Amino acid sequence: MTLAEDLAKQQRSISVAEFFEKNKHLLGFDSPTRGIITTIKEAIDNSLDACEEAGVLPDIYLRIQRVDSEVMRIIVEDNGPGIIPDQVPYVFGKLLYGSRFHQIKQSRGQQGIGISAAVLYAQLTTGKASSVISRTGADRPCFRFDIQINIESNEPDVIAKEEIEWDRTHGTRVQIEFKSTMAARKRLLEYLKYTSVVNPHARIRVDLEDESFVFERVSDEVIECPTPIKPHPHGIELGQFKRMLAGNNSPLQTFLVENFSRVGEKTAREMCSVSGLSPDMPAGSLGPEEQRSLLVAMQEIKVPAPPTSQCLSPIGEDLIIRGLEKEFQIDFIKARTRPSSVFAGHPFVVEAAIGYGGRLVPEGNAQILRFANRVPLVYQQGACAITGAVAGINWKNYGISQAGLPTGPLLILVHVASTNVPFTSESKDAIASIPEIEREITLALQDLGRDLKKYLSRRDRNKLQEERARAVCAVIPELAAKVAEILDLPPPDISSIEGRIMKRLVARRRTEENRTIIEVRNYTSVSGRITLYDMSGDPGENVDPPPAFVSELDGEYTRVWQIDIEPGSVWTASYLGAGNGSMEIRGIDEKNVVMVDMDV
Amino acid sequence: MTLAEDLAKQQRSISVAEFFEKNKHLLGFDSPTRGIITTIKEAIDNSLDACEEAGVLPDIYLRIQRVDSEVMRIIVEDNGPGIIPDQVPYVFGKLLYGSRFHQIKQSRGQQGIGISAAVLYAQLTTGKASSVISRTGADRPCFRFDIQINIESNEPDVIAKEEIEWDRTHGTRVQIEFKSTMAARKRLLEYLKYTSVVNPHARIRVDLEDESFVFERVSDEVIECPTPIKPHPHGIELGQFKRMLAGNNSPLQTFLVENFSRVGEKTAREMCSVSGLSPDMPAGSLGPEEQRSLLVAMQEIKVPAPPTSQCLSPIGEDLIIRGLEKEFQIDFIKARTRPSSVFAGHPFVVEAAIGYGGRLVPEGNAQILRFANRVPLVYQQGACAITGAVAGINWKNYGISQAGLPTGPLLILVHVASTNVPFTSESKDAIASIPEIEREITLALQDLGRDLKKYLSRRDRNKLQEERARAVCAVIPELAAKVAEILDLPPPDISSIEGRIMKRLVARRRTEENRTIIEVRNYTSVSGRITLYDMSGDPGENVDPPPAFVSELDGEYTRVWQIDIEPGSVWTASYLGAGNGSMEIRGIDEKNVVMVDMDV
Repeated sequence: MTLAEDLAKQQRSISVAEFFEKNKHLLGFDSPTRGIITTIKEAIDNSLDACEEAGVLPDIYLRIQRVDSEVMRIIVEDNGPGIIPDQVPYVFGKLLYGSRFHQIKQSRGQQGIGISAAVLYAQLTTGKASSVISRTGADRPCFRFDIQINIESNEPDVIAKEEIEWDRTHGTRVQIEFKSTMAARKRLLEYLKYTSVVNPHARIRVDLEDESFVFERVSDEVIECPTPIKPHPHGIELGQFKRMLAGNNSPLQTFLVENFSRVGEKTAREMCSVSGLSPDMPAGSLGPEEQRSLLVAMQEIKVPAPPTSQCLSPIGEDLIIRGLEKEFQIDFIKARTRPSSVFAGHPFVVEAAIGYGGRLVPEGNAQILRFANRVPLVYQQGACAITGAVAGINWKNYGISQAGLPTGPLLILVHVASTNVPFTSESKDAIASIPEIEREITLALQDLGRDLKKYLSRRDRNKLQEERARAVCAVIPELAAKVAEILDLPPPDISSIEGRIMKRLVARRRTEENRTIIEVRNYTSVSGRITLYDMSGDPGENVDPPPAFVSELDGEYTRVWQIDIEPGSVWTASYLGAGNGSMEIRGIDEKNVVMVDMDV
Repeated sequence: MTLAEDLAKQQRSISVAEFFEKNKHLLGFDSPTRGIITTIKEAIDNSLDACEEAGVLPDIYLRIQRVDSEVMRIIVEDNGPGIIPDQVPYVFGKLLYGSRFHQIKQSRGQQGIGISAAVLYAQLTTGKASSVISRTGADRPCFRFDIQINIESNEPDVIAKEEIEWDRTHGTRVQIEFKSTMAARKRLLEYLKYTSVVNPHARIRVDLEDESFVFERVSDEVIECPTPIKPHPHGIELGQFKRMLAGNNSPLQTFLVENFSRVGEKTAREMCSVSGLSPDMPAGSLGPEEQRSLLVAMQEIKVPAPPTSQCLSPIGEDLIIRGLEKEFQIDFIKARTRPSSVFAGHPFVVEAAIGYGGRLVPEGNAQILRFANRVPLVYQQGACAITGAVAGINWKNYGISQAGLPTGPLLILVHVASTNVPFTSESKDAIASIPEIEREITLALQDLGRDLKKYLSRRDRNKLQEERARAVCAVIPELAAKVAEILDLPPPDISSIEGRIMKRLVARRRTEENRTIIEVRNYTSVSGRITLYDMSGDPGENVDPPPAFVSELDGEYTRVWQIDIEPGSVWTASYLGAGNGSMEIRGIDEKNVVMVDMDV
């Protein structure tokens, strides 16, 4: 027997389940710590996708329980359309099974691997089947399945199936138990927070061991579910094209119009004529050389970019800002949704936002929030095209320091939405370096960088002006005292000069000839409503204008006025009194108020 | 009909071939530029693995031809054992098919995906079948197959099969045509160079379009092919364990001894006793709780690490150094092979080398050469655990500057050899961040760093000494002249003083009383053979010692001596002559020679 014959005995076919069981880190199950985030992410992705398809506002319940020191139980329940009983075992118990793989549209799940990988990880680490409850309508029965995957065949293994009572009319609930810990608690909460930022229409309620969290929706608008488009003639490879042609007996022209996006009759005729083929010949009858030259013609002839309005679902600048404002306190924030673009025939849209200042950490690298098809990417930041594009920008141009990544109190959000996001692995952690995508990210961030630069230089100018004003104000009292001394007069009240220079609100209170006079001057550049409290032992007869409200307690009277005051204007009030009271102003930051109480 | 029923119609199973056709970037086919490197890498990996299994020194021929402006043809031919005709279609025409997936041993290919992925890429981009010729022995027929993959079923599609004449007695030749360019030419040659560094037993001959290259072997020793081991009890998960138990009716003790590495009868009995099970009960009869507690016991009981001498094949320090010296000119080089270690039950060994100085680029980041199971990793350096470990070391401790990565004329080689290298994707570009692996890399590099530091401080000390000596030598002539002036004597010859201080070889030639005298003094610290050429018009009668060789041309005589000269010793020669000749010394760096020709 030759060596080759001996070696041949070891050759065998490997099932997809075997492959991913051994290479589970490719699916995001590197470690028990990470497994919990991957499992929750896959389940929530499915729930959000299902709700979007059903056109309902997602209401997702997530429960995380410790079973014992090594095992965690995850329950994810949604109000989606449910899954019909025949399909449940396949959706949860077979890798590479799903509805979205062959559709050209934006969705979170694309591969038909995610949730079954979680089921696989559970059975591998705890030996336990995963439990699925699903119901598709009020008039339909509800079933509970206990599911495992047969590793050798990659087919579902239904351990148990029973009809049960469920108080929901539609939705799906999955329960998975696997070896894990809560070591990644912080990262998990971040993942949920960021999921909520890019899914402002979703409400996610979380019971994490003994604690509860709610990530409330900020928008009540149902996201329109993207609808699939046909392949674009510029994004097709010869191998696929041959398969489309095989056995198709429509005339060539009709075949092109019916099977490709953006190909009308005129374009189809042009494609036939450039490749020297008759538009009437049956599509399936083309020889290899004819197929090749037709494809060349299809890719040479100018065709508009694929339509993106239906197949993509960007978040939009307004909702990105609202989402970020809900979760962060930031001084400056801007978002940009780029026009749609194409790589290898796949349409995509890049959205980005930049936040600055506020409670962002003032030192160290900028915080980068990466998203793909409305899913936060939480691992492998270093391997991602988004990070590469951020690091490739010269941030010093925009007044931001940089050491590889930009540094300072800066938050950068990038969302890539595509019919086919090119991830670097099945675990969908990082986007591959596709030049077209990197270019769009760069353009969006440069555009936002220019806005940030304007903001920063305005802020710096204001700061400079304020510093100068402060310097002037510091010498005014001495100047005034000196002038008064020379003129032999009492030192003048300089508070309104100071207020005018510093652009403050100046409130003065004095008592003259048995009358208390209150004066408020608005030197700020904003109008606003303030509330003024005047407290003294005087009952306050003859008050002008009358206060909104007066109260008395133990012979002490409080008068309350609500004042709308325009920039540059003055408001005054007076009443009979002997003075010796005090004053308070609410409704404006106290560092912007100069309070002068001459009675004290 | 409910929405769920509507959605169910779109659910379907996805074949592995469909999945990877759509996600071809996961297999390293991101772009035509990269595709050529991936294809060649997969073919050469297979050839090297096959030769190793057959115990032959690999002789690989690679041909790269341009077919037209867009299409390249790759031919890889090896002298391996060949593949039997029944298996050829599966090995090349079915993803997830192979002999090494289920074996616990080090090999380049593990997944059974690589070469079929190249066949898939070829048919996708050019529509062409790939051609395979293989023969398994002198007495066996040779067949040529044209193979494609049926995308929907992931089964091989044999387009043609014929018996042919082939002048080889055994080996395999694969020819693949796909859309590509030579844009990655430099990277391709680097890949081949590095492959040769870590496979010093392989000879690779390359015809790249019009140019030819040979990467010669530096070792004639056949690598011993790693032999598979059984799984280690600490590296098994419950799901796998259940499958091993199922249907096995051996007594529990026997089952443990026969199926696990490092488990002898005593250990097996202890495992049974700790989990409260009888060593005689049939393995297949364990209930779920018994399975679980037995596994816990197996993982708690101390068992030696898996044996690595058979299943791993590290390169070895000596061969790493020889491989690097063949391809680089370096002043300092050291290598380290760490003791074997284990992660999740998988044995692995880390090897590393550090090179410094010589012709390495003096500025910028260190050059990092990454290898896994003797395969160079050429993409995704940033995402690799090796890069992470290199950046995590404080290189300043070893006299090397650092900006994230270490900088300067530094070369760092790391080789990870394992029965299961945890790559971050199927394209096997980067090693995942496994703490045990990162730790071993760090230890190896720190160890080498200490050696480097010693070298650098010795070099710096030598430099300092030389500078001091140079300063002394600079004043000696003046000093000598001054002393001579005072004593009213001619200035002395100070060259030997200079040579002694500077630790040089001093050669002096003078003619006295019609006799030419040559004197060589070795003030260096090394012994060596030098060649001395003495040229003059004198025929050189009465020569002592006689030269090795004398030549005459147009009345000019050249005498050649070969001199072995120890540190501190003197060699002299003389002959009858009138002087007026010249002298040359070869075999020692000329900056270490002081030449004093008194006749000139």
